[in-house]
Amino acid sequence: MLKKYLLAPGPTPIHPEVLSAMSLPIIHHRSTDFTPILDSAKKGLQWLYQTKNDVLILCSTGTGGMVGSVSNFFSPHDKVLVINGGKFGERWTKICRSYGLQVQEIEVKWGYAVKPDLIEASLKKDPEIKGVLVQASETSTGVYHDIKAISEIVKKRDNTILIVDAISALVAHDIKTDQWGIDVMVGGSQKGMMLPPGLSFVSISEKAWKMAEKAKLPKFYFHFKKEKEALAKNQTNFTSAVTLIIGLNESIKLLQKEGLENVFKRHEQLAHITREAVKSIGLELFSQESPSNAVTAILAPEGIDGQKIYKTLKDKYGITTAGGQGKAKGKIFRIAHLGYADIFDIIIAVSAIEMVLAELGFPIKLGKGVSTIEKLILKK
Amino acid sequence: MLKKYLLAPGPTPIHPEVLSAMSLPIIHHRSTDFTPILDSAKKGLQWLYQTKNDVLILCSTGTGGMVGSVSNFFSPHDKVLVINGGKFGERWTKICRSYGLQVQEIEVKWGYAVKPDLIEASLKKDPEIKGVLVQASETSTGVYHDIKAISEIVKKRDNTILIVDAISALVAHDIKTDQWGIDVMVGGSQKGMMLPPGLSFVSISEKAWKMAEKAKLPKFYFHFKKEKEALAKNQTNFTSAVTLIIGLNESIKLLQKEGLENVFKRHEQLAHITREAVKSIGLELFSQESPSNAVTAILAPEGIDGQKIYKTLKDKYGITTAGGQGKAKGKIFRIAHLGYADIFDIIIAVSAIEMVLAELGFPIKLGKGVSTIEKLILKK
Repeated sequence: MLKKYLLAPGPTPIHPEVLSAMSLPIIHHRSTDFTPILDSAKKGLQWLYQTKNDVLILCSTGTGGMVGSVSNFFSPHDKVLVINGGKFGERWTKICRSYGLQVQEIEVKWGYAVKPDLIEASLKKDPEIKGVLVQASETSTGVYHDIKAISEIVKKRDNTILIVDAISALVAHDIKTDQWGIDVMVGGSQKGMMLPPGLSFVSISEKAWKMAEKAKLPKFYFHFKKEKEALAKNQTNFTSAVTLIIGLNESIKLLQKEGLENVFKRHEQLAHITREAVKSIGLELFSQESPSNAVTAILAPEGIDGQKIYKTLKDKYGITTAGGQGKAKGKIFRIAHLGYADIFDIIIAVSAIEMVLAELGFPIKLGKGVSTIEKLILKK
Repeated sequence: MLKKYLLAPGPTPIHPEVLSAMSLPIIHHRSTDFTPILDSAKKGLQWLYQTKNDVLILCSTGTGGMVGSVSNFFSPHDKVLVINGGKFGERWTKICRSYGLQVQEIEVKWGYAVKPDLIEASLKKDPEIKGVLVQASETSTGVYHDIKAISEIVKKRDNTILIVDAISALVAHDIKTDQWGIDVMVGGSQKGMMLPPGLSFVSISEKAWKMAEKAKLPKFYFHFKKEKEALAKNQTNFTSAVTLIIGLNESIKLLQKEGLENVFKRHEQLAHITREAVKSIGLELFSQESPSNAVTAILAPEGIDGQKIYKTLKDKYGITTAGGQGKAKGKIFRIAHLGYADIFDIIIAVSAIEMVLAELGFPIKLGKGVSTIEKLILKK
């Protein structure tokens, strides 16, 4: 019997109380059994997002929320600026181009964060840019872009909105939607929210709603105005993903019990001890700056295939991490510390990495990474 | 303690074995834990759809599958023919128009089925029509359109595809995708499949794939060609709705154990006893012809508000049925016999209807409807 551990950056483990709530007999979505749950979940999302804006709840993966965040705010041939520093930055570009937008890209070397100055310069050069699209945490590289600094640049412009993919950052990073002035922010269920995949969330500012009025791209399934109207009646525009929304409500209650500040601190600590542990055993981080609190991307040592590390962790030790995506495939492996995670998840992961690397011929002092973690925890 | 009964046309009750499988710890979608499950579910869907075509599995409500079935096969200004006989027929029109298609409608009076001759005549008159869009079971009226006859008309034309919304018909009606020649057929998880909302399914014929090659409407989230390529590797294009697909696999196993013919017979019998019971207590069916096996729509008696019947069933007896939608609101109420349902679900519903109608002042012989059912069952 191989006991299973899930440390991939989504889906992440589901909290047992959430799983239990989701296992009750299903109820009807347009009924008084369900509307108070949706009401509570929508208010909880506003709390988590730190916003008074509407936060829509869509039945889709996070990518669906990203697509809606393009099709609801722009018209064909509109100009947008995409920060492309990884696989999900690439996705913004692909979505925008598939809808006929003119995309200008700031390409960021994988493993690095965007320099906000470059965004300011691009916007100055082209006043017609209507949207800036960026990831908060770029899951493919383990890098966090400085959303606060980027917000300050974009909010000065009346006709440009900031659209943030916070799918893996939500819960892991303290992102102050209203205080910073983020116009559109996308979240997903299967990351920090401790839920199965199937829901995406989108917060929308007044400024963005005004742009939505003029947007001409075709939309039907992700129709934000209609979702907003439905949400005001504690409904969704189409059938609600009842089970997942019940889980969402439970998840938020758990996060509220912990307290927002503690939630962020926990993720910061887990990310910190992960990085220090892997560095102490002689590994190098893939993220050269601004590492994410959601996921740590680690370079496979010279001569060892990252996919081989991933595969051995999985097959021999029952630990599901993630390999590299796109051009990082084979070069890196990634460990998430996201959602229902604590220090012992990291100790398990680091201990297994030590054993796997030793087996694969990497010179390592067994127990070194784990001792690094223990020392860091006791020093606190 | 009010015991709850769910007899609405989606979500429908979830089979306990399905619920139990969905309650296990979550697994990663791009892993060898999950790919055999997806492989089994996709083959199971082909069995259920009676097709050798690909059946895509999308993370969305059924409407998402409908939207994809428009955006993947047509280009702006293409002409389509929509059979509009209820709220979901209207939805086809709205989707097509939101994507800039030219829609010709055959309006069918609510409660009636389309005359296939009218479709043939429309197609003859306009050889440019590239698609015929229709519901199998129109959930809002409880009517089943004759998909077999419609298929025979459309399949004679090389440049027209038939797109069927079988969201509530799947499992409840014997629809022979390949034998009849249906090009695109949409299903959803929360109806006959005994699953929560969150998945849609789309089968696609060779003829439809050829049209997809020329289709220019924008698409990204519902990109069928990419889903097909992913499915060949037992993956989905974006994050898989892991939990729901695990449930799907279990549901199909249960249906396979029962046998396809028995599944259809059960739904036919439940629909039949429902109709006979409500007629025997003096109620009139809303569907004047070709009633659906999935849901029975019943006219509220003269002077009694259909919503009042719905509400009393729910509040006093714990039974969730459905009221009328759109222009049928207040005039009808609807009972589903779909998915995890047997004769005693119908006996409960009919017994409660008898009591509610008596309370609302409708002259009724208590027990009459239930006795009708018992007699019908024993006669078999």
